[in-house]
Amino acid sequence: MNEESIRELLAGVQSGVTPVEEALSALKKLPYEDLGFARLDHHRALRTGQGEVVFCQGKQTEQILAILEHLGAHGVNVLATRLLPEKAETVLARLPRAQYDSLAHCLWLRPFPESARSSGRILVMTAGTADLPVAQEAVITARFMGHGVQTLFDVGVAGLHRLLDQQKLMESSDVIIVVAGMEGALASVVAGLVAQPVIAVPTSVGYGAHFQGLAALLSMLNSCASGIGVVNIDNGFGAASLASAIVRRIHGAQR
Amino acid sequence: MNEESIRELLAGVQSGVTPVEEALSALKKLPYEDLGFARLDHHRALRTGQGEVVFCQGKQTEQILAILEHLGAHGVNVLATRLLPEKAETVLARLPRAQYDSLAHCLWLRPFPESARSSGRILVMTAGTADLPVAQEAVITARFMGHGVQTLFDVGVAGLHRLLDQQKLMESSDVIIVVAGMEGALASVVAGLVAQPVIAVPTSVGYGAHFQGLAALLSMLNSCASGIGVVNIDNGFGAASLASAIVRRIHGAQR
Amino acid sequence: MNEESIRELLAGVQSGVTPVEEALSALKKLPYEDLGFARLDHHRALRTGQGEVVFCQGKQTEQILAILEHLGAHGVNVLATRLLPEKAETVLARLPRAQYDSLAHCLWLRPFPESARSSGRILVMTAGTADLPVAQEAVITARFMGHGVQTLFDVGVAGLHRLLDQQKLMESSDVIIVVAGMEGALASVVAGLVAQPVIAVPTSVGYGAHFQGLAALLSMLNSCASGIGVVNIDNGFGAASLASAIVRRIHGAQR
Amino acid sequence: MNEESIRELLAGVQSGVTPVEEALSALKKLPYEDLGFARLDHHRALRTGQGEVVFCQGKQTEQILAILEHLGAHGVNVLATRLLPEKAETVLARLPRAQYDSLAHCLWLRPFPESARSSGRILVMTAGTADLPVAQEAVITARFMGHGVQTLFDVGVAGLHRLLDQQKLMESSDVIIVVAGMEGALASVVAGLVAQPVIAVPTSVGYGAHFQGLAALLSMLNSCASGIGVVNIDNGFGAASLASAIVRRIHGAQR
Amino acid sequence: MNEESIRELLAGVQSGVTPVEEALSALKKLPYEDLGFARLDHHRALRTGQGEVVFCQGKQTEQILAILEHLGAHGVNVLATRLLPEKAETVLARLPRAQYDSLAHCLWLRPFPESARSSGRILVMTAGTADLPVAQEAVITARFMGHGVQTLFDVGVAGLHRLLDQQKLMESSDVIIVVAGMEGALASVVAGLVAQPVIAVPTSVGYGAHFQGLAALLSMLNSCASGIGVVNIDNGFGAASLASAIVRRIHGAQR
Amino acid sequence: MNEESIRELLAGVQSGVTPVEEALSALKKLPYEDLGFARLDHHRALRTGQGEVVFCQGKQTEQILAILEHLGAHGVNVLATRLLPEKAETVLARLPRAQYDSLAHCLWLRPFPESARSSGRILVMTAGTADLPVAQEAVITARFMGHGVQTLFDVGVAGLHRLLDQQKLMESSDVIIVVAGMEGALASVVAGLVAQPVIAVPTSVGYGAHFQGLAALLSMLNSCASGIGVVNIDNGFGAASLASAIVRRIHGAQR
Amino acid sequence: MNEESIRELLAGVQSGVTPVEEALSALKKLPYEDLGFARLDHHRALRTGQGEVVFCQGKQTEQILAILEHLGAHGVNVLATRLLPEKAETVLARLPRAQYDSLAHCLWLRPFPESARSSGRILVMTAGTADLPVAQEAVITARFMGHGVQTLFDVGVAGLHRLLDQQKLMESSDVIIVVAGMEGALASVVAGLVAQPVIAVPTSVGYGAHFQGLAALLSMLNSCASGIGVVNIDNGFGAASLASAIVRRIHGAQR
Amino acid sequence: MNEESIRELLAGVQSGVTPVEEALSALKKLPYEDLGFARLDHHRALRTGQGEVVFCQGKQTEQILAILEHLGAHGVNVLATRLLPEKAETVLARLPRAQYDSLAHCLWLRPFPESARSSGRILVMTAGTADLPVAQEAVITARFMGHGVQTLFDVGVAGLHRLLDQQKLMESSDVIIVVAGMEGALASVVAGLVAQPVIAVPTSVGYGAHFQGLAALLSMLNSCASGIGVVNIDNGFGAASLASAIVRRIHGAQR
Repeated sequence: MNEESIRELLAGVQSGVTPVEEALSALKKLPYEDLGFARLDHHRALRTGQGEVVFCQGKQTEQILAILEHLGAHGVNVLATRLLPEKAETVLARLPRAQYDSLAHCLWLRPFPESARSSGRILVMTAGTADLPVAQEAVITARFMGHGVQTLFDVGVAGLHRLLDQQKLMESSDVIIVVAGMEGALASVVAGLVAQPVIAVPTSVGYGAHFQGLAALLSMLNSCASGIGVVNIDNGFGAASLASAIVRRIHGAQR
Repeated sequence: MNEESIRELLAGVQSGVTPVEEALSALKKLPYEDLGFARLDHHRALRTGQGEVVFCQGKQTEQILAILEHLGAHGVNVLATRLLPEKAETVLARLPRAQYDSLAHCLWLRPFPESARSSGRILVMTAGTADLPVAQEAVITARFMGHGVQTLFDVGVAGLHRLLDQQKLMESSDVIIVVAGMEGALASVVAGLVAQPVIAVPTSVGYGAHFQGLAALLSMLNSCASGIGVVNIDNGFGAASLASAIVRRIHGAQR
Repeated sequence: MNEESIRELLAGVQSGVTPVEEALSALKKLPYEDLGFARLDHHRALRTGQGEVVFCQGKQTEQILAILEHLGAHGVNVLATRLLPEKAETVLARLPRAQYDSLAHCLWLRPFPESARSSGRILVMTAGTADLPVAQEAVITARFMGHGVQTLFDVGVAGLHRLLDQQKLMESSDVIIVVAGMEGALASVVAGLVAQPVIAVPTSVGYGAHFQGLAALLSMLNSCASGIGVVNIDNGFGAASLASAIVRRIHGAQR
Repeated sequence: MNEESIRELLAGVQSGVTPVEEALSALKKLPYEDLGFARLDHHRALRTGQGEVVFCQGKQTEQILAILEHLGAHGVNVLATRLLPEKAETVLARLPRAQYDSLAHCLWLRPFPESARSSGRILVMTAGTADLPVAQEAVITARFMGHGVQTLFDVGVAGLHRLLDQQKLMESSDVIIVVAGMEGALASVVAGLVAQPVIAVPTSVGYGAHFQGLAALLSMLNSCASGIGVVNIDNGFGAASLASAIVRRIHGAQR
Repeated sequence: MNEESIRELLAGVQSGVTPVEEALSALKKLPYEDLGFARLDHHRALRTGQGEVVFCQGKQTEQILAILEHLGAHGVNVLATRLLPEKAETVLARLPRAQYDSLAHCLWLRPFPESARSSGRILVMTAGTADLPVAQEAVITARFMGHGVQTLFDVGVAGLHRLLDQQKLMESSDVIIVVAGMEGALASVVAGLVAQPVIAVPTSVGYGAHFQGLAALLSMLNSCASGIGVVNIDNGFGAASLASAIVRRIHGAQR
Repeated sequence: MNEESIRELLAGVQSGVTPVEEALSALKKLPYEDLGFARLDHHRALRTGQGEVVFCQGKQTEQILAILEHLGAHGVNVLATRLLPEKAETVLARLPRAQYDSLAHCLWLRPFPESARSSGRILVMTAGTADLPVAQEAVITARFMGHGVQTLFDVGVAGLHRLLDQQKLMESSDVIIVVAGMEGALASVVAGLVAQPVIAVPTSVGYGAHFQGLAALLSMLNSCASGIGVVNIDNGFGAASLASAIVRRIHGAQR
Repeated sequence: MNEESIRELLAGVQSGVTPVEEALSALKKLPYEDLGFARLDHHRALRTGQGEVVFCQGKQTEQILAILEHLGAHGVNVLATRLLPEKAETVLARLPRAQYDSLAHCLWLRPFPESARSSGRILVMTAGTADLPVAQEAVITARFMGHGVQTLFDVGVAGLHRLLDQQKLMESSDVIIVVAGMEGALASVVAGLVAQPVIAVPTSVGYGAHFQGLAALLSMLNSCASGIGVVNIDNGFGAASLASAIVRRIHGAQR
Repeated sequence: MNEESIRELLAGVQSGVTPVEEALSALKKLPYEDLGFARLDHHRALRTGQGEVVFCQGKQTEQILAILEHLGAHGVNVLATRLLPEKAETVLARLPRAQYDSLAHCLWLRPFPESARSSGRILVMTAGTADLPVAQEAVITARFMGHGVQTLFDVGVAGLHRLLDQQKLMESSDVIIVVAGMEGALASVVAGLVAQPVIAVPTSVGYGAHFQGLAALLSMLNSCASGIGVVNIDNGFGAASLASAIVRRIHGAQR
C-alpha cells in the first residue's frame, strides 16, 4: 500500500472510474484475513520479503491447523516453528504432504527450492553438540527462505584448533550464525577472525549460574570483538531471518 | 597469515632459500606491536576490514596518546571512541590536526573520505532527542569506516505518523540502525515495516524500572518482528561496525 | 460501616433504645463470615462495588467449594478465577448450574446480566493469538462486573496496518485493555493513537530473555506514550477490575 | 487525519477542485514540525487531549529552549518536566513569564486555568514526606491538564488511623493517585477501602533491598486489592496523565 | 563443653584421677554421631534449646528413616519438616506411632506436650487462605518446641476490618508471626498496630511479577513499620524457631 | 483508641454527659498533628512503645527541624536517624542541646536514661571494622529506647578463635544483633552457638558480586542455623527496634 | 602441535623427505575426529592432562553412545558426567563393562587406577547431606583423574564442633573442595582455618530466596577469607578438574 | 593451638608445673590483639601462611594507620589493599618508608624479598589495557607473598594470534591468573590451551549490559573449559591469595 498505489487510486477517483466510497474502502481494506482468533498478515511476507511463518508456541493445535490451511490455500509455502512433536503428529495426519524436522521442531508445507536456485551462503556454527536443536531451527528457516546453508558444529573455544583450521570456510560465507550456550565465547572468537557480519544466538545450554541462557546472552552483548548482532536466547529462527535480510540485500534476490 | 602464505614459506624452505629457523620465526612473528600496557593489533584492521579503533573508556590519557601516536604513525586513520571531553582536550593539544565530536565523544586523526567515495547507505534513526549521543557515535563510526549515512531523529512510536511518512527513506537504505531508550518499541515497528536488516541499539535513556537500559534491551531482544540484531546498551560503535560489515558484503568493498 | 451508621447507632444509644453493650458489639461485628480457613468479606463487594470474586490458585477444591457455596447462598453472583479444569470439573459436578470458560479458567454461578443492561464499553485488545487466555479472563471479568465488552485480537505492531484501520473502534470505547507478551510494544502504540485511558497487561508469552513476562512488563512501565496503567503479568482479572472502576465512575452505576 | 477528512479530500479530488498531487501531499503532510534534533508533534496534543509536554531529562538546555519557544509560539501552554534547577534558571532568564516549581522540577509557560474552570477531582496521596517531589509532579501535571486536585500527604500504613479518618475525602474523588516508596503498601490499603480507580506510583524512597524503587514497584503490581494501575517508579507525570484520561472520560471534557 | 566442664576436667588431670590421654579424648569427643552421610548433632538441641529437627528436602527416604531412628532411639522427640506425602507414607509404615500433618508436610515421633505445660503465646496470622501450608509449618514447629499457639487466618489488608477488630488478640500474644504472599503488606500493618515483636514470613503465593516470593520478601524487608524480623520465603519453620527463642527468653523456659 | 475507651465514651453518651456530635468527633480525632508536609503520629510511640523517631533521608533540613521542634515541644525525647553531617550542623545550630553521633549519623534531643535505669542486655556484634557505622546506629537506637548495650566488634568467621572465646558474653545477653557485610556468615555461626534470638543486619560492605549488600542479605536469609530474623541492608535502626520489642516483652518495661 | 613438532616437520621438508603438500596437510590435520554432530578432541586430554570426559546433559542417548564408543576404541578411559539413570541404563546394556554411580550420575568405561598408584590427597567436604550428589561427582571425577580422595560430609557451620576437630585431616590434604548450599558459609570458615587452596562449589540446595544456588554462589564469591576459587553451581566435575590441575602441579604426575 | 600443644599443656598440669587456672587461661588466650574497633589476628598469618593484609575500603584513615602501626611493630611486613590515593598520602606522611603503587592502590611497609628468594612462577594475564589496575593488585599481592610473577597484558580473544604465540610462557608457569572484563572469554581460551590451574578474575570493565562485571563473572563461571576457579569481580588480591596457596603447596615453602 505504497505511494504508487495511492496515486493510481487517486487517478481513478479523479477520472471518475473509481467512486469515492470504493476508494475509501480500498484505502482501508489492507490485505489481511481475520480468523477471529488470528489476523493473517499476507501483506507482511510481501513487505519484509521473509515468507509466511507461524510461531506455534502457545497456540492450540486446532488454531495452528486453521492458520496453516488458510495460508497454504494461498499457494505459498508456510513454515511452522516451535511445533512440539505431539502437535506435529496431529498436523501431519491432516496435512500429509507437510514435512517435519523433529530436532528443530519445524514443519513446512512444500519442499524447499532446489539448492541450485538458493541464494547466498549462510554458515551456521555451534559451540557444542547440545546447541544443535537451535542451530537446526536456523538451518531450516534459512533454507525455507531460499538460501544456501553450510554448517560447522561442535567447534567450541575449549579446543581452538577445531576452529582455526576452518578459517577458509568461514571467510567464504556471506554471513555467519554462531550458536553457543555456556559462556558463549565462540561469538567473540569468530568475530575476531573474520570480516563477515556475525549473528550470535545464545542458547539455554548450561546450568547453575547460566540462568537459562542469561550468561551466554550477556557474554555476546559484551563481546570485545565488534560486528556482532545478538538475537534472543534459543532464537534460531530470528537469527536466520536477520541472515536472510542481509543475504537478500547482497544478492538482490527477494523470492 | 593464511594457507597461501604458509605454502610460499614452505616452498622457500624446500628450495633452501629460507632457513628453518627463519621460517619458524616468521610463523610466529604476527603483526602486532607491544607497547607494554597494550598490544596494538595492526592485523585486526586487515583481518576484519574495520579500521583502527581505540576504545578509550578506562584508559589513562597518556596511554591513549601513546596508542594514537603509534597507530597514526603507520599512516592509517584512527578512531577513538568514548573519549571524555577533558581527555580529548589534552589529546587535541598534542595532536592538533585531529577532530573531536563532543556529542558522540569521538575523536579521529584524519578527515573522512569524501562522501562521493563512500559506499552504501546506512540509515540511523532515534526514538527521541535524548538518544542523540549514541546515534551520533554510530554516525561517526559509519562515516569513519567509509559509508554513506542518513539520519531520521525523534520518530518514536508515540507519534506514529512521524514515522509512517518516512517509509520511502527507510526502504532506500541498505541497513537501518534503530537507537531507542524507554521501551525501545521503535525497533519492532521499523522491522515490521521494511525488508532491510535492522540493528537495534537500546539506550540507557529512561528512569526507574528502566534499569539503565535493561528495559529497552529486553524489549528489542523479544521483538515480535524478526530480522533484528541487537547490540549492547548505548553501543553506537558496535551497531555501526555490524552495519559496516553488512554494507561491505553488499558493495563488495573490502580487503 | 460509615459515619451515618455510627451516628444512627449513637442516637440509639442516646435515646436508650440501644444498650451500650449491644452498640459495642455492633461496632465490632463487621460483615464478614469466618469459615476457619477463610474470612469471606461480604462487605468488600459493597465497599468497592466489584462483586464477589474468588482467586482459586493455591486453594484446595474443597475450600473453593465451601467458599462458593457460602457466597452463593447469599444470593449474589460469584466469579471464580484461576480455576484449573480438573478442579472445575469437581465444582461443576457439585454446582451444575455454574458455567466454566476453559480458555479463561473462570467459573461463575449465575448468568451475566443481559447486554442491554450492561454499562460502558471496554475494548480488550491482544498483540497475538497466544495472549488470548489472559484477554479472555479480562473479558469474562468485565462482563461479570456488568460492563459491555468488545475485542480486537492479534493486532501486534509487526503488522501496523491491522491496527491502524481500527482507530474508530478504539476511539469509541471508554477504556482500552491492551494484552501483549513478547516486547509488549502494542501498549505504547495504542496509547499514542487515542485519548482513552489504557490498561496494559503484560503476558508471559515469549521465551529466553523474556523471563516469563518481565520484558513485556518493563516495556509497558517505560512506555514513551503516557496515559497507561500497568497491572501484574498475566493479570487479566486485575485489568478488568480497574477498567470496571473507571467505567463505574463514568457511568455513575453503583452505590 | 481521520476518515471524515480523507472523505472530504477525496471529494475535492473527485470534483476536480483538488489536484492529485496536492491530495497526495496533504495525505502525507502530518502536523509535526522538524527542528532537526526533535520533531514536535502538535498533533499528539490534539490526538490524546493531554497538552504539550516536554520531558527534559537528557536534553540540553539549548534544545529545551528551542522546543519551548517553538511550541509556545503556537499559543498553547507547555509543561516541561524533569527540568533540573540549573537548567531552569537559564530557561527562566530567557522566558521570564514562565513559572517553575523547584520541588516538582516542573516549568510551565502560562498560568493554569482558574480552579473554577478545572474539571474533576483527583486526589494525590503520599505514604511519607520523602515522597513529596514525585507527588508534586503529579499535582502540577494534573493542574496543567485542567483538573481539580486535592492532597493527603504522609498517611503511611504504619499509622493507619491517619488514613482511616480520611475515608470521606477519598470517596469524594474521581480517581486516586497513591505515591509511596519503601514497601508501597499504601496502594493496597487504599484500594481495599474505596471504589475509585487507584493509580499507584512507586517511588525510589528507601535503601538497601529497596533497589531504587523495585521493592515498591513489585509490591504494587502484586497488590491483593484489585482496581490498581501502576506506573513507572517516580513517574508522577505518568500517573497524572492517566488520571487526566480517566477524568476526561468521566466529565466529557475532551477534544 | 563450656568453661566449667573444662575446669573440672583439668582438676581431674591435676589430681591424677584423669589420665592425660583420657582428658585429651574427652576434649575431642564432642556429642555427635556419624552415620556416614550425616553427622547427627545431639549437642545442638542442648546448645540452642530448640529440639531435634530434620530438614527432609533433598534427602532420600532411607536416609531420613536412618536419622529418625537414630535420633528417636535417644528418647527425645524429633520433628521432620518438608517431608513429602510419598516419603511420609514409607516413614509411617516403618514408624507407625509417628504423626504426619499433610498440610504442613511435617512428621513427629511423639505427641506434643499437653497444652497446659506449653509456655508462651505465639500468634500465627495469614493474609490469605493459600498461605496456610506455610503457616501450619510454623504452628506445628512452635507446638513441637513446647509453646502455646493461636491463629488468625485470612486477614489480608484488602479487608482491613477483618484485622482491626482483632487488636486485642494481637496484643495479648508474646510474639506474632505474619505469613503473607502477594505484596506482603500485612506485616507492615500489624507492626504498625502493636508493640509485639513481629516475625514476617513471605510466601511464594502469587504469580507474574511476584517472582516466587521475591515481591513479598522485598516488601517485608522495606517495611515502613519497624520491629520486624524477616525469614526466608515459605520458611514457617524458621519463623517458629525464632519465635521460640524469643518466648524462651521471656518465660525463662530452657537451660 | 481501644475497647475500654469506646465503652467509656458510649457510657458518656448514654448518660447524656457527652452529646452525639462530640462523641462522633472524638471517635475521629486521633492523636496526630498535621504539619502540612508531615503528619506526626504521637500515637505511634504509645501504640508500639518505641519512642519518637524521625527518618531523615530524603527530607529537607527545614522539614527535619520543623518535625524535631514540634515533637520536642511535647517534652519527649526524639531520635533522628540517617541525618547527614551537613544537615546535622544546621540542626545543631538551631537546637544546641541536641547531641550528634557522626559515625552513626544519629541525632537526639535529650540525654539517654542513665544506664542504671536501662533494661535488658542487647549484644551488638560486627564481622569487620567497616560494619561499624551500621552497628553504631543500632547501638544508639537501642540506648535511646532505654536498653543496655554491649558490643563485640571485628569477630568475622575468617578468624573463628576471636569469636569462640566470647561464648560467655554471647550467652549472657537477651538478644544478639549481628552486623555483617561480605558473605555475612557470622550470623549463621553465632546462631549455631547460642540459644538467644539473633537479629541479622546485612551491610553493603563489599564490592563486585556483593551487589550493595544483596550477597550478605541472601546469605542471612538462607542460614543453615535457625532462630534468625533478618532486617533490611544497613538497617541498624530496624534491628534495634526489633531487639527493643523483644527486650520489652522479656523485662516488661515499656518506657 | 608445539614448536618442536613444527621444527621436526620443517626439517623433513628441508631434507626433502616430506613433500610440501604433506607438510601443509599435517599442519592442518589436528588430532580430532569428526562424528558429524560432535568433534572429538583427543588432543585436549593431551593438552590439559585431564582425561576424556563427556558432558551428557542435552545430548541424546545415541549421541552419547557413539562418542563413548569412538573414544573407548582409542583404549583410554572415558568419564561420562550428568548422565541420567534412564540413559545410563541404555548405555550399560550396550557397554556392559562400564560402571555407573547413580548418586553422582557418572559412568566410566574402565576401573580406576588402584589407590596405590593414585597421586595427591584431595579432601571433599559437604555442609549437609543434601549436598552429597554434587560432592560425589567431584569424588568420582578426582578418582578418574588418578588422585587420592578423602571425604568429610555434613559438617555445616551450624554445628562448628563437628568441623573443628577435623583440623588435622584438613591440614593433611593438598587441596580442599567445599561443597555447600544454603548460605555456603562453610567455605569461609574452612579457608579461615587452613593454608590449603580451597575450591568452593555452591549447590542449589535451598529454597525461596536461595534462587537455585545464587545465594550460596554470591556468598562464596564474597568470602571474608581469601584463598578460595569458586566454580559454577552444582559443578562437582569442575571443582575436581581444578583440584586435579593443582595436584598435578604439586606431584608432577601427568597421567 | 593444635593437639600437640594441648598435650604439652596437659602434661604440665599433670606434673604440677602448670596450675589449672594458668592452663585454662592459655587455652583461652589466642593470639589476637584488640584495638577496640578491630581485632588484629596475628594468628591468621601463621595459620594460613599468607602474611598480614589490611583491606582498607570502608576504613577511616586513622583506623588504617593504627592497624598498620600495630602490625608493623611486630616486625613483619604488611600489605594494605584498596587504599585510595588521598588516604595513601596521609599514611605515607606518617610512615615514610612505606611504598605505594597508585595503579594497584596498594601500600606496603617493607621491600619485597629479592626475586632470587621468591618461589614459584605466577603468570598474570589481562584481556585489555583497562584491566591493568586489577591485574596490578594481583601482581603486588603475589610478590608481597614471596612469589615470582610474570605478566602478559592486552591479549584479548578478538586478536587470538597475540595469545597463541605465548603458549610457551603460559606452559612454564605454575598457575595462571586471567584478568578480563567485557565478556571474559580469555579465561575459557587459556584454560583450553594449558594444563595449569587457571584463576579467573572478572573485572568491571565494560558498560551497559555488563552490569559492573556481572557479564564477565557469569561467563567465567560457565566456561566450557574446565580447571578454572573464579574469584569476585575486580578481586586481584583474592586471585593472588589463591595462587599463593597453590604455589606454596607446589614448592613446599611456608609452614
